[in-house]
Amino acid sequence: MGIIPKALKALTLDLQRLPGIGPKSARRIAYYMFTLPQSRLEFLSQTIKELQQSVTVCQFCRLLSDTNPCEICGDSARNPLEICVVEDNMDVFAIEKAGTYKGVYFVLGGILSPAKGIGIDDIAISALQKRVNDVLKQKNNGTVEIILALSPSTEGQTTSLYIKELFAENEKVSVTRFAIGISVGSDLDYVDSFTLQEAMKGRIKVE
Amino acid sequence: MGIIPKALKALTLDLQRLPGIGPKSARRIAYYMFTLPQSRLEFLSQTIKELQQSVTVCQFCRLLSDTNPCEICGDSARNPLEICVVEDNMDVFAIEKAGTYKGVYFVLGGILSPAKGIGIDDIAISALQKRVNDVLKQKNNGTVEIILALSPSTEGQTTSLYIKELFAENEKVSVTRFAIGISVGSDLDYVDSFTLQEAMKGRIKVE
Repeated sequence: MGIIPKALKALTLDLQRLPGIGPKSARRIAYYMFTLPQSRLEFLSQTIKELQQSVTVCQFCRLLSDTNPCEICGDSARNPLEICVVEDNMDVFAIEKAGTYKGVYFVLGGILSPAKGIGIDDIAISALQKRVNDVLKQKNNGTVEIILALSPSTEGQTTSLYIKELFAENEKVSVTRFAIGISVGSDLDYVDSFTLQEAMKGRIKVE
Repeated sequence: MGIIPKALKALTLDLQRLPGIGPKSARRIAYYMFTLPQSRLEFLSQTIKELQQSVTVCQFCRLLSDTNPCEICGDSARNPLEICVVEDNMDVFAIEKAGTYKGVYFVLGGILSPAKGIGIDDIAISALQKRVNDVLKQKNNGTVEIILALSPSTEGQTTSLYIKELFAENEKVSVTRFAIGISVGSDLDYVDSFTLQEAMKGRIKVE
């Protein structure tokens, strides 16, 4: 629309390329930002500009962090022989929030997706392989458990399968995955058939 | 969470103060922005910093605009004697998108809300009064129609009533409001009682 000022239009277009922001909310946010004091806009502007400068990547788990190693890998109370493989940083926060996991993580930075053109070299699979070998070298006589916490989509399952095959020959590595099943508090009526099938397959003894 | 890098946390906190962005989507957006090329971050940073510099306010209708008067007020094909009063810029876009209105607008910049502490001096009511008088002076013997397009909430109705009273003594000004009724395509079953009452009250002859 020609009646939207150029600067607000430019900001709207930029905002609607961010995840989860549609054209309408982008416009609403742009107009809202216009009403903010210049000092707040400058602060936000500065934060965005310098975003990448102070942040580093943990050399062990590839989590974005202020320190290297990150807080988790640097914590001697965590078990480095349990490596939970996740797609991105957000997944680590979710599992940490659950609060019971005492191993470490490995952030793949994506999952295999032929449809989106994401292949083996686009995600950190060889880095995972190296990480596992390094841990095994350090902890002589130890065995590593790779816990796959990838989403139960076709892509997630393809990736899980690929990683399983990668370590199939190595008897010092076991590969497990998160259980698929019905969520706590969910209504059986609303659970999709695929999940129900998996929940049935993965049933365990009541104790 | 201590495991989120400071810069990403700062950006997340800033983003979640924007309308329609919750803590989780703010974090997702911040992490997404981290993956963008620095050039795009700098471009966005610059856009935000200079947001308020190139934009002006139309002296007639108070719409944010690149030009003063704005495109609508400057368009000789639009009727200045029909003034549609709206709460904010977004409302103008919605009505323009509908495409049939040929008058001009007046952006109040808010509606009266005792609960939120928004009084008469916080919105552009006196400017509206001045605008109507100016138009009447310019167009001798003309009459102005003020079309209230405020939301049918308590606040919107209070504001509408206040504006109606303001021009009650002026026989050259008529004040109308948008019809309240059921939306096109909506299911009667899902329409709230208040809207149904108003739709009943405002019924018109089938022609």
